[in-house]
Amino acid sequence: MREEIVEAALAQFHERGFNAAAVKDITDRAGVPKGSFYNHFESKEALAIVALERYGNGGRLTELADSSVEPVARIRAHFEGMRDDMISSGITRGCLLGNFGAEIVDHSEPIRAGVRAGLERWSGLLAGAIAEGQEAGGIPRELNADQTARYLLSAWEGTLIQARAFKSAEPFEIFFGITFGSLFKG
Amino acid sequence: MREEIVEAALAQFHERGFNAAAVKDITDRAGVPKGSFYNHFESKEALAIVALERYGNGGRLTELADSSVEPVARIRAHFEGMRDDMISSGITRGCLLGNFGAEIVDHSEPIRAGVRAGLERWSGLLAGAIAEGQEAGGIPRELNADQTARYLLSAWEGTLIQARAFKSAEPFEIFFGITFGSLFKG
Repeated sequence: MREEIVEAALAQFHERGFNAAAVKDITDRAGVPKGSFYNHFESKEALAIVALERYGNGGRLTELADSSVEPVARIRAHFEGMRDDMISSGITRGCLLGNFGAEIVDHSEPIRAGVRAGLERWSGLLAGAIAEGQEAGGIPRELNADQTARYLLSAWEGTLIQARAFKSAEPFEIFFGITFGSLFKG
Repeated sequence: MREEIVEAALAQFHERGFNAAAVKDITDRAGVPKGSFYNHFESKEALAIVALERYGNGGRLTELADSSVEPVARIRAHFEGMRDDMISSGITRGCLLGNFGAEIVDHSEPIRAGVRAGLERWSGLLAGAIAEGQEAGGIPRELNADQTARYLLSAWEGTLIQARAFKSAEPFEIFFGITFGSLFKG
């Protein structure tokens, strides 16, 4: 039952945000009685932290570390996969880390720590792939790999916001064009 | 009284987001009776659209069009001013356009249109300054000015999310370092 609540919460938080996702919506979605919620979780906030961890382990990050794929192609495929997920959902939902980062981190220290941990893990893996790309050629050595990873995650999170606000895939084309056509060309 | 409600709503939406800002919080903050709200606005959504317009006319955009200042310096000063606003607020709140873009645009077509209009106006002014910088020298002519403006707004919105999630000014340093030290160096 705990597992069903976590899966339902992840989907509900992702679609609606933290504040608009009521415990009742989550338990209805999970198909469990609302009264059972507090047997498993102390609060909606505690559940949000588990949902964030689940989201971060969703599989898209492991492909960044797959050194059987050429680094620049791997980085591009990583972002293309997330773009495809967005397009499949009708350009809605965005990224749970970015959504919580915009909505709730100022008001919940535990959620802030969870979002930070998710971003750190992601940027660490991306920085590793960028450093490999600098070794192998294809990414300018003058760029600082850690800072470039953090910058690209910022550009990506903003791209998701623009894609949703414009209901358009054009922000993705801009992201790929400038990142791979200019920043990585040096 | 309408004016006081709009100012209070802008502050409340900016601090708490759309869903967490109740009409009662807004009328309390404005110092007006809750019952008076619906004499002035049809809904919280209608008020949010007025607050978005007010936010977009907040003054930071006009400096982007001030052609008495050298274009690259003007672009830098624009983002530095917004960074300083963030630091003054203890690295909270972020950008109302980005916050609504992450939280509510999937669920309100009128708010989505308002966020889109705000982003279009901002990126249009930024694109103009970038094009001037390409004429004057200092920004590579190979960059497409409109796309670069959209990309920088994405990078900026993501930078605000990271700054809030890390409770740190480091994401701003990364934004300035990569934008002005790499992307604009060509």
